[in-house]
Amino acid sequence: MPTLILLRHGQSQWNLENRFTGWWDVDLTEQGVAEAKAAGTLLTDKGMDLDLVFTSVQKRAIRTANLALEAMDRLWLPLVKDWRLNERHYGGLTGLNKAETVAKVGEEQVKIWRRSFDVPPPPLEADSAYASLQQDRRYAGIAVPATESLKDTIARVLPYYEAEIVPALKAGKRVLVAAHGNSLRALEKHLSGISDADITGLEIPTGQPIVYELDEALNRVDRYYLSER
Amino acid sequence: MPTLILLRHGQSQWNLENRFTGWWDVDLTEQGVAEAKAAGTLLTDKGMDLDLVFTSVQKRAIRTANLALEAMDRLWLPLVKDWRLNERHYGGLTGLNKAETVAKVGEEQVKIWRRSFDVPPPPLEADSAYASLQQDRRYAGIAVPATESLKDTIARVLPYYEAEIVPALKAGKRVLVAAHGNSLRALEKHLSGISDADITGLEIPTGQPIVYELDEALNRVDRYYLSER
Repeated sequence: MPTLILLRHGQSQWNLENRFTGWWDVDLTEQGVAEAKAAGTLLTDKGMDLDLVFTSVQKRAIRTANLALEAMDRLWLPLVKDWRLNERHYGGLTGLNKAETVAKVGEEQVKIWRRSFDVPPPPLEADSAYASLQQDRRYAGIAVPATESLKDTIARVLPYYEAEIVPALKAGKRVLVAAHGNSLRALEKHLSGISDADITGLEIPTGQPIVYELDEALNRVDRYYLSER
Repeated sequence: MPTLILLRHGQSQWNLENRFTGWWDVDLTEQGVAEAKAAGTLLTDKGMDLDLVFTSVQKRAIRTANLALEAMDRLWLPLVKDWRLNERHYGGLTGLNKAETVAKVGEEQVKIWRRSFDVPPPPLEADSAYASLQQDRRYAGIAVPATESLKDTIARVLPYYEAEIVPALKAGKRVLVAAHGNSLRALEKHLSGISDADITGLEIPTGQPIVYELDEALNRVDRYYLSER
């Protein structure tokens, strides 16, 4: 039975500081490191082995994958990194504290940016302290977005899923995707058939493996938090 | 100019204990971790950036690659793991302390096993404490050797180099190979034209990036320890 395990990265420094992160390459906190290791230990304890791992090109997800694999004694597994599994690009909100942003533009506006399906935040401006990410070498040859709605994020995650992850699942591989709140929402929306209106409210906790058991057509048979089994 | 950087893994627990390691999957020591990070810092300090990394399926090399990439802020680079870059398989010597083995079978015999080009140690027996590695899932589908001479090791490293690393170098990629004493000897022998008799005496220090500057035909133009430039 094809199995897909979703794992949101452990706590990052900007999760802790309550800042919009997006494509800024923030590292894990010590707690985030511990969460990643615990995810690997849980996978081993529950007898969930893996064959292949996908992650983004952001260190909080890559380190989460590596730390989990190390805890599983599976560091030798193939690990594929791709920008299309990156977090949603938060545009001009990148780096801002969420509470301060609410104080500045109002709760309603922030709620629209955070929770609407297809309204992107304002673009990341060239004079932003974070504008350098738009020229980062890791994105050479890619049309780096200046901002993204969740809809935009889904529009790059799902074609990647179809092209790279689906063939692995169909070949019977047990796949882990170590990624981000919104790139994982894209997969959850697709696999669980969640509506545009509801998907923005789906909270995905850090460091908690979510197991999708799939049938041969890759339709959902079951979905659960591994910690609850 | 194509550039190939060779990096032997940092000190492992069995380097420290002076034991034959081979394919047994021994981890880095704290000093080994520090060496791997220092290698990454040195690469950055010397302005040596990378495009692609190859390593073995052994954790001491994989962790060395990851720790160096992390120190370089290049964790996002593609990393390819392949058993053909593994250490030489030490057969029946696996796990034995080198001094104890000398005491048992004599210095001359150990010297032959360690320093001859084409004489393999006795095979790893089924009742060895280390026999489980022969059935390790990471080697599924591979004819796992029971022992290897350096010649045998070269016979699997060089075809991999030609098939996977050469195309990357020809495409202009700056390549790091994070591997082991004997798999790196295979590459040094090939690139520096070292004789069968001399290659077994070439010592490759742990955690020291060795830079090969190559011409377009991938012939050696220069070879140096990065720490000496």
